Formats: sequence, structure tokens, C-alpha cells
Amino acid sequence: MMTIVGIVTAIAAIVIATLIDGNSFGALIGPSSLVLVVVGALGVSLSGFDIPDLKALPKAIVKSFTAKLEDSDDTIDVLMRFAEIARKDGFLALEDKLKDVDDSFLVAGLQQVVDGADAEAVREILEVELDSLETRHQNLIDFVKALGGYAPTMGMIGTVIGLINMLGNLSDPSQLGAGMAVALLTTLYGVIFANLVFLPIGAKLQRLHKAEVAKKELALDGILAVQAGASPRALVERLEAHIEPESRRGHAARAGQPVVEAA
Amino acid sequence: MMTIVGIVTAIAAIVIATLIDGNSFGALIGPSSLVLVVVGALGVSLSGFDIPDLKALPKAIVKSFTAKLEDSDDTIDVLMRFAEIARKDGFLALEDKLKDVDDSFLVAGLQQVVDGADAEAVREILEVELDSLETRHQNLIDFVKALGGYAPTMGMIGTVIGLINMLGNLSDPSQLGAGMAVALLTTLYGVIFANLVFLPIGAKLQRLHKAEVAKKELALDGILAVQAGASPRALVERLEAHIEPESRRGHAARAGQPVVEAA
Amino acid sequence: MMTIVGIVTAIAAIVIATLIDGNSFGALIGPSSLVLVVVGALGVSLSGFDIPDLKALPKAIVKSFTAKLEDSDDTIDVLMRFAEIARKDGFLALEDKLKDVDDSFLVAGLQQVVDGADAEAVREILEVELDSLETRHQNLIDFVKALGGYAPTMGMIGTVIGLINMLGNLSDPSQLGAGMAVALLTTLYGVIFANLVFLPIGAKLQRLHKAEVAKKELALDGILAVQAGASPRALVERLEAHIEPESRRGHAARAGQPVVEAA
Amino acid sequence: MMTIVGIVTAIAAIVIATLIDGNSFGALIGPSSLVLVVVGALGVSLSGFDIPDLKALPKAIVKSFTAKLEDSDDTIDVLMRFAEIARKDGFLALEDKLKDVDDSFLVAGLQQVVDGADAEAVREILEVELDSLETRHQNLIDFVKALGGYAPTMGMIGTVIGLINMLGNLSDPSQLGAGMAVALLTTLYGVIFANLVFLPIGAKLQRLHKAEVAKKELALDGILAVQAGASPRALVERLEAHIEPESRRGHAARAGQPVVEAA
Amino acid sequence: MMTIVGIVTAIAAIVIATLIDGNSFGALIGPSSLVLVVVGALGVSLSGFDIPDLKALPKAIVKSFTAKLEDSDDTIDVLMRFAEIARKDGFLALEDKLKDVDDSFLVAGLQQVVDGADAEAVREILEVELDSLETRHQNLIDFVKALGGYAPTMGMIGTVIGLINMLGNLSDPSQLGAGMAVALLTTLYGVIFANLVFLPIGAKLQRLHKAEVAKKELALDGILAVQAGASPRALVERLEAHIEPESRRGHAARAGQPVVEAA
Repeated sequence: MMTIVGIVTAIAAIVIATLIDGNSFGALIGPSSLVLVVVGALGVSLSGFDIPDLKALPKAIVKSFTAKLEDSDDTIDVLMRFAEIARKDGFLALEDKLKDVDDSFLVAGLQQVVDGADAEAVREILEVELDSLETRHQNLIDFVKALGGYAPTMGMIGTVIGLINMLGNLSDPSQLGAGMAVALLTTLYGVIFANLVFLPIGAKLQRLHKAEVAKKELALDGILAVQAGASPRALVERLEAHIEPESRRGHAARAGQPVVEAA
Repeated sequence: MMTIVGIVTAIAAIVIATLIDGNSFGALIGPSSLVLVVVGALGVSLSGFDIPDLKALPKAIVKSFTAKLEDSDDTIDVLMRFAEIARKDGFLALEDKLKDVDDSFLVAGLQQVVDGADAEAVREILEVELDSLETRHQNLIDFVKALGGYAPTMGMIGTVIGLINMLGNLSDPSQLGAGMAVALLTTLYGVIFANLVFLPIGAKLQRLHKAEVAKKELALDGILAVQAGASPRALVERLEAHIEPESRRGHAARAGQPVVEAA
Repeated sequence: MMTIVGIVTAIAAIVIATLIDGNSFGALIGPSSLVLVVVGALGVSLSGFDIPDLKALPKAIVKSFTAKLEDSDDTIDVLMRFAEIARKDGFLALEDKLKDVDDSFLVAGLQQVVDGADAEAVREILEVELDSLETRHQNLIDFVKALGGYAPTMGMIGTVIGLINMLGNLSDPSQLGAGMAVALLTTLYGVIFANLVFLPIGAKLQRLHKAEVAKKELALDGILAVQAGASPRALVERLEAHIEPESRRGHAARAGQPVVEAA
Repeated sequence: MMTIVGIVTAIAAIVIATLIDGNSFGALIGPSSLVLVVVGALGVSLSGFDIPDLKALPKAIVKSFTAKLEDSDDTIDVLMRFAEIARKDGFLALEDKLKDVDDSFLVAGLQQVVDGADAEAVREILEVELDSLETRHQNLIDFVKALGGYAPTMGMIGTVIGLINMLGNLSDPSQLGAGMAVALLTTLYGVIFANLVFLPIGAKLQRLHKAEVAKKELALDGILAVQAGASPRALVERLEAHIEPESRRGHAARAGQPVVEAA
Repeated sequence: MMTIVGIVTAIAAIVIATLIDGNSFGALIGPSSLVLVVVGALGVSLSGFDIPDLKALPKAIVKSFTAKLEDSDDTIDVLMRFAEIARKDGFLALEDKLKDVDDSFLVAGLQQVVDGADAEAVREILEVELDSLETRHQNLIDFVKALGGYAPTMGMIGTVIGLINMLGNLSDPSQLGAGMAVALLTTLYGVIFANLVFLPIGAKLQRLHKAEVAKKELALDGILAVQAGASPRALVERLEAHIEPESRRGHAARAGQPVVEAA
């Protein structure tokens, strides 16, 4: 959401400033600049990546507009409940409850615990999972950043081509201003697409990625604590160290009742 | 404090230099440039972050103006006293004194020691706490740096829009100078807001963050030493290695009396 | 493939934009700019590298155009079959099947297992292999990136030389425009060769390299699992953590039949 | 020393080149540019740091001009002698000789050895000391680099202000050249102060820091070797691996007499 | 060699392009620009380093022109022979053969093995040696890169000084072009010296450094294998993992005869 709000705000700022200065928008319409910057940047960026990257792009863009920052609060609640069950009824009792959990990373890790894998094995497989997620995400983010990097360059190429043509035809000096205005237009489009579209989307994807990794690291920590037989209270204390102090509610609040410590 | 003093000094330098050169300030007033640069940069930066980041921003800016660099001197004193008590009366005797300690990181760590957590567990939970602090701070610092990075770009966008309009209307050449002056104004605003406001605030937040992390690392080191039963003198020696040589006062001076080594 | 498609798309975007604006291509032909940018950038880049790097360049460029991203799916299948055989018939039984495997990294690692090397030794030799691959690839990528970095600089050198000559011969002002147009041409060629040729090729080589390393890391992980006597199902689970969730088919699907777990 | 020689050489190069071209220095005098660049850059840099940083700055600048690169030759000699004594007369015999050692890092480490701290504790306390030195130095270096980064920006701000005023008053075109000349002056001052003053000082501080760290790492290595009871010859061999081959004199040469190996 | 060939090629490209465009070289001669750029950049770079760095510079430049990339092929042969001898006749038998080895790193390491140092000690001393080499080389490379970084800046300083003088003396507009041409000349010299001399030399030194480190790491690996009593065949297999697949000749080929495995 914030991504659309932010981009609309920035466009509004440009529009308002242009109106205050009494500048016209007609001079800013340039289909050729649009083609050169958007198609050109997409082509060049694409040539450094491959088909799977291209396929993943639209979904990533939509995600940057709609996804919310991952919040680990629920994960702590879920893990607290699993710690309770594990201590009371053993790991096998967890299997039934796994159906109610949405988070596939959490499910995969806890399934390993149920299956009796040892702590080192659980950690390893989840860390490989995290690394692999990191590689996939970073790849997409790099793609979007490449778009943001090439857009102004394509704009500059268009401007230089325009300037060269203009300078080679100085017979009618009255056209010089108009020629330069058109030439500058691709520079403008390049800078705007880079800074109002591609780079913010890339930054947002990076932000979402960081929040997702933080959530998964908390989950990994919690899964290992459940396996180690931590008490629900100790587990909450440990996991709340991962989140900001304002969000820490403590075991009692999370359990929603006077705590009777199981251990 | 220093942040305001520094920014005011820099603005004064610009004002004085402008006066010396006999330049007028009237030509530098541009509400449209202000809107474009500040609102635009805020919008674009925001689109790469999310609501919690926006909410944390004002507090961070105030902090960059008012916060003092964290100083670890008190922490050493506190830990020295706790080491003394721990050696004389055992860890449980620490609990009473924890009420008088302000620093929540120190309290959390020492509480773990009182609760009898083993050294590895204490270290792990405090390191998670530190990592999580680092992530939160870095996120905010990146936000402020994004503002500093986008401000000149928004300024350049305004300038190019102004130039395109000016070049497309060269019928009245006498207006050319005035048009370019107005166009350049957004560039000026962009550079000034970036370099006199956003980037210094970002740098100060980074500086404050580093000092806070250094203090917390010293505290972590000291908590583990208390738990390991270090003598007050050994603890002071160890912790003073963290701070600059000029601030090292030694155990005797800190104790404020001839040392009678407890061990 | 995608590299050629991408570059052609970007060139098409430039051509179409130039046609829309009614600019001519005649003004953009400059053999001297071509010589200066391409030969110059090659010379300068070469002086920072050596003959083996130059020899490896053409093959790398062809590879960037034709190579497909490495896919680890087959590797998982192969390792699953080897895990099965190893558990049923012992490591020595693997030797026969090694002939059918294409991937030399996989063969080398499994041969070590057959030869009875211990896990640490297998890991070490394969990691050295990976490091050495990384060094060789990075070297080539740096070479291509150097080409992309020097091309615009050579273009700028040509433009400055052109400007100096033009400015020194202002006797015929009507030539000024034409002179500047020619001077700007090397800048254009420099930017185009960097951004439409060298940098995308460099980015593609980097992308291919990352995919190859990811595949080899999966193979390394799998070889060690085979040696440790992992069941085919556990091995598939472990290795599929390396790849994107959509490509995970599970042991049953890979085996192509109802699973009868060997262990 | 070299810092002053270098800066003077660079200034001389500028002066000579200006004289050869017949340019005048009168046009290069601009008190307003001086104020804007130096005071402005100081203000902005300061706002990102704090009072302790400002206090440490003058001493650091003086140090960059006068300090010599730390040389580890003496340290090896000292440690060789201490290794000899330690092997002959035990660690306690070292205490007397510590008075004659200047290097406080060496004294602190050897004092720990005399006090009977174990190897791990000695290493830890000295590494904390090194980290803390690194943080303090890097902070100062960042401050000086900030000065070097902001100076050209302040210069550009002055130039844009000058250009805006000039462009707004084109009524007297004969003044255009003079106005632009004055405007460019702050750019010149900004670039000169950054590249002839701040950045070289920052680079020199970095260089001195690296040499100091290298010396302290050698000392740390040697202190641990003394504690481990290394023979003087083994210690010299080990420590000389830290320094360039040309400076290696070997144990015999250092002892200044035919070696009679103690062990 | 390649460095000279590369630089000459780049200069030839500039000359040919200039001739094709009919530009004159006379306009490109500027002794003042040469002084300003070369002496100025040397001065500024020097002020960030120290006398030992200056002394090492000429040798490094010569090395960048004449040195060949280190090739590890011989090292593998030598280590293979030493492994054979060590297994047949023990470590002491190696001492005689050490005289025939050129590589001082190899000799130092093998001497340690002969002297009976344990594996950890051999590894440590050789790693310190490698670190210290890295520091010395990187220092020099940084010096050359500083030259490449300051040269265009000094060029820009000269250009701005020229522009200021020209703009302040617009009384004779016919001189404007010539004045700007001269002013631009220092920019040209700065860019050329940076990109055709300093940066390629720096890149070459970096390339040579990497190859030397790779060779020494292979040697370190091999020395430890000899000490561990590896068979010649195992040693060759292990060491050949360090080099590119095309250069791997295997134990049989290296021994130049049918292999009779010693173990």
C-alpha cells in the first residue's frame, strides 16, 4: 500500500510544483521517450538475467504494492503453544496441530522435529532453505535495480542522439530550443522511471525480504527451542528478543491468563 | 545538540557568503521547489519502506538532535558493584539491586544471571537482542539516507521540467535567464535539503547507533564476566579495554577508596 | 538466448524512438568513434589483465549468449539414485554408474566417496574446486565489466579531443554545430557499447556463475549425504530445500512410483 | 612529513601550471568561497558527529602531518629479549623490565602474562583493546572524510546560488562572464579543499591506522608466543613473517652475536 | 607485457580516431596540463601515504609491465616430488632438495616441516606471511589507484581555473574558444593519465597479486599435505583442484611414467 501512496505523493508533488511554476504538461508528453526508456531499460536489464527472472517479475511488482511487512507476533504465539504441547504430550502430539499452521517454513521445521531429526539436521535444512530464499529474492531485487540503473542511461542515450541530430541541423536556429527540449525529454523520462518507479519498487522488495528473513530466523530459533524442550515462558522471552521492545507482550499476556509455568 | 549547531553553522556560512557576494535572497525563494523536493523525496522514500518506518521517523529525527553519545563509564561502575556483590553474596543477592539500574539491556542480562541461565544462553539472548536493535536502527538510518539520496534527484527532475518548458518557449529570449534561474532553484533546494538536513541527520543516527552498540557490547562482556565470577578489579581492567585510554580510571579510582581486593 | 533478445529489444527501442522523433541515422555513423571506443576500451582493459584472460574472453561472450541457467533438478534425481544404490549395494557399486553421469563435479566428488575418502577430505577438495572456479569466473566477469567501465571513458576522451579542436577553430561558426555533433558521437558510442553490450554480458556471466555455484553447492551437499548413508527420501527433502518451492517434486514423484522407503 | 611535502607539491603544480598558462591569481581570490566551503563543510560534517569527535580532530590533523609510520622492528627486538628472560628466569622476572618499555599495548599484554592470566584471557583483552582502537580511529577518519565529501557539495551550492542570481539579472550581459567566474570560484574552492586538504589527511590517517594495527597484531602474536614459552629464535622467525622480507634480519643479527640457542 | 601492449593499443585507437576525424594534435599539446595532472596527482596521492610507499612505487610499476601471471604448475611438480621423498625417506631427506627450490615461500614452509614443527604452527606462520604480503601489496595498489583517482580531479581543477580566468576576461570574445580549449586540456590529460596509465597499472598489480596469492595458497595446501604424509597421487589430485581443468595433467603425466603408486 505504502508503495502506491508514496509514488502517488511524489507524482503529485511534481504536478503541483509544475502548476505553481506555470509550466505546461503538453511539453512533457513524449511517446518516443517512453518507448526508449521503458522498452530499452527492460531489454538491457533482461539481457543480464534469464527467462525465470522475467517470469517472476510481474508477481514481484504486485507484491511490492500489496504485501504487508511480515510481523512475527503470531509466530511467537504459535510456537508458544507448540512448546506447551511438546512439554506436556511429547513431539508426536504436535503433528495434529501442524494442519492449522499457515506458515510453510514453520510447518517444515516442526515436521522435522516430529520426525525426530536431531537439532543439527533441523538447523541445517532450515538454513539451506533460508539461503535459497535469499538467493531467489536477491536475484529479483537485482533485476528491478538493474531496471532502475539502466533507465536513466537509456534516457541519456536518447538525449545524446537528439542533440547530435539537432547540432547537425543548425540551419534553422529557431528550432534549436525545441530540439533541445525534445532531446531532454528522454533524460526526464529516464530519471522519473528510475526514481519514481523502479528504484522504490526495488527498495520495497528489499524491505519486504528483510522482514521475511527476520521472521524466518525467529521461527528457526523457536523451532530449535521447542525441540530442546524450552518452557513456554523461556521461549517467549527468547523470541521476544527478536522484536522491537514495544511489541513485547510477555508470556502472561500472550497466554491470556494467569501463567501457571509448566516446568 | 551538535547536529543543530552544525546545521545552523552551515546555513550561516551560506548566508554570509551570499551577503559577501552581494547576491540577493529573493531570487532563492521558491515554494514550488520546496514542495517538489521535500514532498517528492518523502513520497519516493516512503514507497520503499512501510508504515512502521514512517511512524518511527519523527522520533528518530528528534533523537538525532537531542540524544547524547552513549558513554559506558557508568556501566562499568554498575558492573563493578555487581561483580563485588556476586562474589560476596552470590547471584541471588543481585536481584534487589537490579531495581536501581536504568539500562534495560543490563537489567535483562543480569536477570538471566540471577535466574541461573548458563553463560551460552545469556550470550545468545543478548546477541539476538543486539542484532534486532541493529536491524531496527539500520532500517531507520536507511530511510533517512533514502531521503538524502532522492532529494537531489527530485531537484534535478524539477530543473529538467523547467528547462524543457523554457526551451520550448524561446519566443521571448529576455525570459531565458529568468526561466533558467527558476529551473535551477529546485536543484539548489534538492542539494541543500540532502546535504544540510537529511544526510547529516542520517550520519548522526549512525553515530549514535554505533555508540549504543559499543555500550551494549561492553555490557554484554561485563555481564558474562560477572557470571564467571570475575573479581571487581579484573572486571574493570577487562571493560576499560573497551573505552578510550583517557577515560580509563582503574578499579581503585572507581571504587573511590584504597582497594581491598575481594578475591 | 535472453541476452540476444534483450540486446535486440533495446536496440529496437532506440531505433523506434529515433524514427518517431524524425531523427536521422546518418548523423549517428562514425567509424572513428567505433575505433576509439571499442579498440580503446579493449586495449585499456587488456592492460589490466593478461593473455589467459584475453583467450578466455571469446568463449565467455559466446557462453553469455547461448548458455542456459543451470538447473539442479537432474542433479537431485541422479543423487537420489546414487543414495539408493549406496544403501543397497555399498559405495563400490556406485563406480559403474559414474560413467553415465555428465557433470564432472559430481563425478569427481562421488569418485572420492567410492575411493573411501572421509567426509572432511571430500568436502575440502570440492570446496577448493568451487573456490578455484569462483576465482576464474570472477576474473573474466571483472574483465568484461572493465570493458563496460572504460568504454564511456574512451568515449568522453574522444569528445573532449573533438571539443578542443572545435573550440580552437571557431573562425567558421557555422561549423560549430557539426563539430560538436561529431564530438558527441564518441560519447554516444561509449555509452551504447557499455550499456547495450559489455555490461549486460557481464551481468549475464555473473548470473550464470551464481546459478552454477548454487548447483555445485547442492551437489556437494548431496554427495556428503550419500556418503553419510542418507535415505533417498531424506536426501531429496534435504536437497529440495536448495531450490524454489515450485520446483520441489518430492521423493515419490521423482522416483516415479509409490515410494517404498529403503530405510 | 610526507603529507606536507605532498600537499605543497600539489599546490606548487597548480601554481606553476597557472603561471605557464598566463592565468592570473587575482581572479582566484574569494573570501566568500572560503567561508562557504570551509565553515559550511565543517558545520555539516559536525552535525553528523559529536563533541568528542570535534575535540579529537585537531590532534588527528597534527598527527597526520607529523606521525611516522609505525615500524615493528623494535617490537621484535623487545619481545625477543623478553622471550629469553621468560625462558631463563620465568614470567615474574619480566616485571622489572616492563618499566623500560614505551609501548603501552606491549606493557599491558606482558603485564597480563606476568599476572598469570591464561592465553585465552590475554588474547581476548588485547583484541578488545584493538577493536576499541579501531572504532575510535575509524570514527575520526570518517569525520575527516565527511569534510572531504561535503566540501565540493558546499562549493556546488555556492555556485548554483551565484548562477541563479546571475541568470536573474541578465540586464547587463557584459557582467555575465564575471558573474559566472565568481560563481565557479566556490566550486574550485570546494574541490581544492576536498582533494588537497581533507581527503589526503583522511588517507594518511587511514594509512597510519593500518600500520599501527599491524604493529599491535604483531605484538599480540609475540606476547602469546612469549607466554607459550617460545624460544627467542622461533619467536623471531614467527614475528618476522609479519614484516616485509627486506626488513627481516633473523635472530642472529638481532641478538648481535653468535646465537647460542637457549632451548 | 600485456600492459604495454594494451596501453599502446588504446593510444593507437585515440590517434587513429583523431586522424580519421581530421583533428590536429597540435591543439592537444599542453605542458602546463602535464605538470598539473602528473605532479599534482603524485603530490596529493603521496600525502596520503609515506616514504616506504613512494620507494616501492617504481619497482611496482616496472613489475606491472614485465611480470608474468604466476602459474602453479611447477609448484605442483615440486610438491609431488617432495611428497614422494617424504614418504620414502622421511622429512629430513627433504632438506637437501630444498636448495634447488626457487620459491622462498615454499622453502620456508618445507623448512618448517623438516624442522618438525606441527601442522598448526606451519599453517599459522605461512598464513601470517600471506596476510603480511596482502597488506603490503594492497597498500601499493591503493597508492596507484589514488593516482588514478586524483588525476582527473587535478585536471578538473585546472579546467575550472582556466574557465574562471577566461570568463573574467571576456573583453575579447574571439579568444573565448581558444581559452576554453586550453582549459579543457587539463581535463583531457587528467582523464587520459588516469584511464590509460594509472588505473590499468593498478588493475594489473591487483591481477598479479591475486595470481600470486592463489599460488601461495596452493603451496600452503601442498606443504600441509606433504607433512600429513599424502601419497604423490592424492597430493596431485588435491592440488589440481586449485587450477583450471584444462591445466590438470594428473599424477601419471606429471611423473612422466607409468604410475606405481607408492602407498
